[in-house]
Amino acid sequence: MRASSISALACFVSFAAAQTFQRLGGCPDLGCIFPPDQVDFLAGQYFDIRLEVHSPVNGSEARVGEPDENFTFTIAKKGKAPVTAPEYFKIDEPELERWNFTWFEDRFAEDAEKPSLVNVTSKIYRRIALYEPGEYEATLTYYGEQKTVANWLVRDLPSKRRAKNVVMFIGDGMTTNMVTAARLIAHRSINGKYMTKMALDKFPVLGHQMTHSMDSFITDSANSATALYTGHKTTVNALGVYVDSSSDAFDDPKFETIAEIYRRQRPDAGVGIVSTAFLADATPAGLSAHTSDRGEYDHVIGTFYEGLTDYEWTNYGPDVLLGAGAENFIASEETRDYYKLFAEKGYNVAWNNTALENAPNDEKLLGVFSESNLATWLDRNVYQSNLYNQSNYPDGSDRDADDQPGLKEMTLKAIDVLDKRHRKDGWFLMSEAASIDKQMHTLDYDRALGELLELDDTVRATIQKLEELGQLEDTLIVVTADHGHGFDVTGSVDTEYMEAQTDDRSKRNAVGYYENSGLSQYTVAGSNALKYSEGVHFPAQWDPRYTLHSGTVAFPDHREDYRVHSEGPRKPAAEDKTHGYVAYYKDAVTGFVVNGTLPLDSGKGVHSLTDVPVYARGPCQELFSGVYDSTDIFFSMAECMGLSEEKKP
Amino acid sequence: MRASSISALACFVSFAAAQTFQRLGGCPDLGCIFPPDQVDFLAGQYFDIRLEVHSPVNGSEARVGEPDENFTFTIAKKGKAPVTAPEYFKIDEPELERWNFTWFEDRFAEDAEKPSLVNVTSKIYRRIALYEPGEYEATLTYYGEQKTVANWLVRDLPSKRRAKNVVMFIGDGMTTNMVTAARLIAHRSINGKYMTKMALDKFPVLGHQMTHSMDSFITDSANSATALYTGHKTTVNALGVYVDSSSDAFDDPKFETIAEIYRRQRPDAGVGIVSTAFLADATPAGLSAHTSDRGEYDHVIGTFYEGLTDYEWTNYGPDVLLGAGAENFIASEETRDYYKLFAEKGYNVAWNNTALENAPNDEKLLGVFSESNLATWLDRNVYQSNLYNQSNYPDGSDRDADDQPGLKEMTLKAIDVLDKRHRKDGWFLMSEAASIDKQMHTLDYDRALGELLELDDTVRATIQKLEELGQLEDTLIVVTADHGHGFDVTGSVDTEYMEAQTDDRSKRNAVGYYENSGLSQYTVAGSNALKYSEGVHFPAQWDPRYTLHSGTVAFPDHREDYRVHSEGPRKPAAEDKTHGYVAYYKDAVTGFVVNGTLPLDSGKGVHSLTDVPVYARGPCQELFSGVYDSTDIFFSMAECMGLSEEKKP
Repeated sequence: MRASSISALACFVSFAAAQTFQRLGGCPDLGCIFPPDQVDFLAGQYFDIRLEVHSPVNGSEARVGEPDENFTFTIAKKGKAPVTAPEYFKIDEPELERWNFTWFEDRFAEDAEKPSLVNVTSKIYRRIALYEPGEYEATLTYYGEQKTVANWLVRDLPSKRRAKNVVMFIGDGMTTNMVTAARLIAHRSINGKYMTKMALDKFPVLGHQMTHSMDSFITDSANSATALYTGHKTTVNALGVYVDSSSDAFDDPKFETIAEIYRRQRPDAGVGIVSTAFLADATPAGLSAHTSDRGEYDHVIGTFYEGLTDYEWTNYGPDVLLGAGAENFIASEETRDYYKLFAEKGYNVAWNNTALENAPNDEKLLGVFSESNLATWLDRNVYQSNLYNQSNYPDGSDRDADDQPGLKEMTLKAIDVLDKRHRKDGWFLMSEAASIDKQMHTLDYDRALGELLELDDTVRATIQKLEELGQLEDTLIVVTADHGHGFDVTGSVDTEYMEAQTDDRSKRNAVGYYENSGLSQYTVAGSNALKYSEGVHFPAQWDPRYTLHSGTVAFPDHREDYRVHSEGPRKPAAEDKTHGYVAYYKDAVTGFVVNGTLPLDSGKGVHSLTDVPVYARGPCQELFSGVYDSTDIFFSMAECMGLSEEKKP
Repeated sequence: MRASSISALACFVSFAAAQTFQRLGGCPDLGCIFPPDQVDFLAGQYFDIRLEVHSPVNGSEARVGEPDENFTFTIAKKGKAPVTAPEYFKIDEPELERWNFTWFEDRFAEDAEKPSLVNVTSKIYRRIALYEPGEYEATLTYYGEQKTVANWLVRDLPSKRRAKNVVMFIGDGMTTNMVTAARLIAHRSINGKYMTKMALDKFPVLGHQMTHSMDSFITDSANSATALYTGHKTTVNALGVYVDSSSDAFDDPKFETIAEIYRRQRPDAGVGIVSTAFLADATPAGLSAHTSDRGEYDHVIGTFYEGLTDYEWTNYGPDVLLGAGAENFIASEETRDYYKLFAEKGYNVAWNNTALENAPNDEKLLGVFSESNLATWLDRNVYQSNLYNQSNYPDGSDRDADDQPGLKEMTLKAIDVLDKRHRKDGWFLMSEAASIDKQMHTLDYDRALGELLELDDTVRATIQKLEELGQLEDTLIVVTADHGHGFDVTGSVDTEYMEAQTDDRSKRNAVGYYENSGLSQYTVAGSNALKYSEGVHFPAQWDPRYTLHSGTVAFPDHREDYRVHSEGPRKPAAEDKTHGYVAYYKDAVTGFVVNGTLPLDSGKGVHSLTDVPVYARGPCQELFSGVYDSTDIFFSMAECMGLSEEKKP
């Protein structure tokens, strides 16, 4: 528990104001320590310590005077005497820094344009580590007698390696509700029992992880990727750092990611990164980047290429890096010519699925298959005409990226390369089904479920591939998500009946619930049924008469006709200068209007609170059973990979 | 897989029409077998077989002629020759029955009032069982060469008893999303990590169960209770039977429940039933009742009292029966004087919490604590004035039931009685937190989460009680749900800001998402903070300035102000003769209107598709890991209780 000597009154004021608009996440007091209270570390994991002392000039916390220049900081292993950081870590005392920042105390202050100003003094200790497991107490003393205490724990984990390889699948935004709906549309059942199961359903161990951010209960993908890869929760939009109050997006206190720790300890091991998103996006970025702003895309690609250059840090280059986002690789004012730079570093560069297939397995591989995100599974496999007139070929020409791989093709190739290059020493692969989240944001549930089914098919094919390679027994496979969306299904919709009704209210009578939800028609093979290979499960049709009555719990103004968007990904709302986001006039035209429940500046759905599922199989699978925090995924993977380092090497 | 010789064309027509409006659930062909295809049995479980042959007079399936009177039925163990049912079970051939029924093929037919008429011939074989594990093929031959085949499996389970006692908790309508939200409002966190966990979070084994109905993908609580207690899925509104097409609600083919099997095999074992609902409601009823209509409340209470009287069947009387619904116990035109009848059978009858506490543990106990459902945890513990002016005292007088127990008090008392009476032989207890579902239906998320937290507190107290009694090691505890509601949380709401805005659109800007969701204020102790005992976790306040931005995925027209309904349980919509259900003018008056997505005849939220969580601890806990069907819960409990009976006794 946090023990703070700040006066009770000041604490209450600060806490009350700090609910949604916060002076600085993770710092309710006027003295801040990052890493903050209640943080756990892997033994030997490098991190920075940032100290700040705040002097609010105005607002509810206003005080007289400058921020303390003479604050002191000590660290104590439990039962031992506190010593200063330079003594403890045998480093030099850093220079004092100064800055100021402003924030709004609440929405009323924001509307009135009345910011609160805070002056800051600060120090940072860089690239240190704690090796001895146990409890530590870090204490910042400021303004004379005021103290902020951070209780830290270095976890006591067995250091024996149990898994040679780890595959971590992230279904971005994936929830149990979505898995249920995906199963319904892709697997046949008779009398309520499924005749086949999803690959995920066959995993022996199930867990739930809590995804909350450090200072808000809803997370974004940057913060949650950071938690999953490092064991440290941070704040929304941050990657691999705690966010300090300075304006510099690159000076924040860092901590090592699992990829960095792994390659630092085992230079001969391999790392692979696969995503259906642009590669600078948060989930792939989280393994490399260290910035408070996930929008710093050039920084992200730079860390894949050469690690950090502004501070001494652990650098690694992935063996395989496959995804999209050509705009962050093509030379421009903001971007170096990364294709050339990666090639010079020995990477083969693939721009389409054919080149991906043909790339040699014994060399490093960069695959960038389109601008922006990859096309969805639904567009690549069912509504293929949507691939054209996109001008998104990854070389920057105006051609269409019409030969894109999917998650499965990329993941299997990544395994081939990693196995070829690192069979002896092992490897870590992160593979992200990114557009579950992206399509949920735009309320395009069909596309989102298509992405989820592609993830499931990829998991199935990965198990098969690992078995063929003789690696299955030595490989831990973890499939999880980084946060949820509030999606569920409540019945069916008779789309013919809905179309036949002429007013918005009558259209709602097309919905059937309970016994009138009926059976899934997506698995019924009509004359134009889609065919898939043996053991591969996708809907036989995407546009049956009776569709799913799907929804999400918070949304902008939009229309709903509960039909697949065959013309391309959905755009539910459009901005109107007077009214904010309103239902997009071209979307779901045969349906009815649903007025939004989100702020008027939001044209998309948002992330949700729910714990997300964790499926595990292979060595250490038992570590993933039950209910735990997102950061525990990092610690369980690190334990399984034998990364706990209790002595300074 | 179902193998049917019916012509492909007929099959397609039938299947296409059968999506939401079905001639008869579980019978896509013109010949019907119940139990239908793909059903599993516990060895030795009694059941009835219903056969029907349909002759549709009009509609898309219309045929010329009467239904077959000379249909034949055989049953074959795999690898053996088929024999008739009288030969196989050594019973008499039953008489042929005849009836007809009508149905609507779709919504257009319903609007046009054009029903389809079906003539039926039928037979039923009653109270038979299959003992030898393995696959069976049941074949109905009709109209000459047409065949309907049901493939049945008698599961091969170890018969060794591993758990002496079983406690099965059902959080009606509870999902992982709700558990997450309940944790957020009741448990404190620092920097994104919880300082305490829920009792559920501490269970070592987690599973997900699929809740689908036999003929629809959304279930109700009757059908899902049946699946959980019997291993047989049926159709919506049915309890302990497959629903045939006759109009008689009591002649349908039955199958034994876990309570019936248990007491038939072990007459000295105990059974307890606890619910916060009226005791004739589906979830408690499912252990005893056998009817196609869950609304037959007198039948339900009658089966608790004396079992079935219309057919020979397995009868048992629970040792403990605690809940509400006095209207089904008080003598009236529809109801016998059950208080008197139960008392004559040796039950003590308790009408309030004081009497519950004081009832002797060595005698049978009926506790009925109010009319309708019990008051919610929130009304019993925080907004207690809502207990008054209810005229709901269970004796039928006009007094208020102002001394009601909660789930915890009832469950702990039930354990005391069961332990006292059956310590040697063991016992089975079902305890239902019913109003999670009931309050979710009315979009009263605060009350629903209060019920969930009471369930969690009951689970915690149950573990403690069993430990005190020295029974914890011998008791399997399973906590699960029967279906979901599409609930989630997407951020916070500044209720002060919302109130200060004057139009519906501006009010939406009070919502904070991502980093502006902030931290849970429900755990912040203000000056009027609510206090609970050590280790007990509920919100410190229910009406903070920053509340949860909660929602469900499908809803009637309603208003939202995201504030606790302190005046009593919520009523979101009211019926209007012209427009169907519209937002109730007294509800959430400081909020904004959200137009509905459900049919106009629905004034409440509805059940959802999602798989629901299963938490298990104790003997056999490993059987509950992973993803499986709702019926597997029955088989795993029966296996653990050693109820598989492979030889006819």
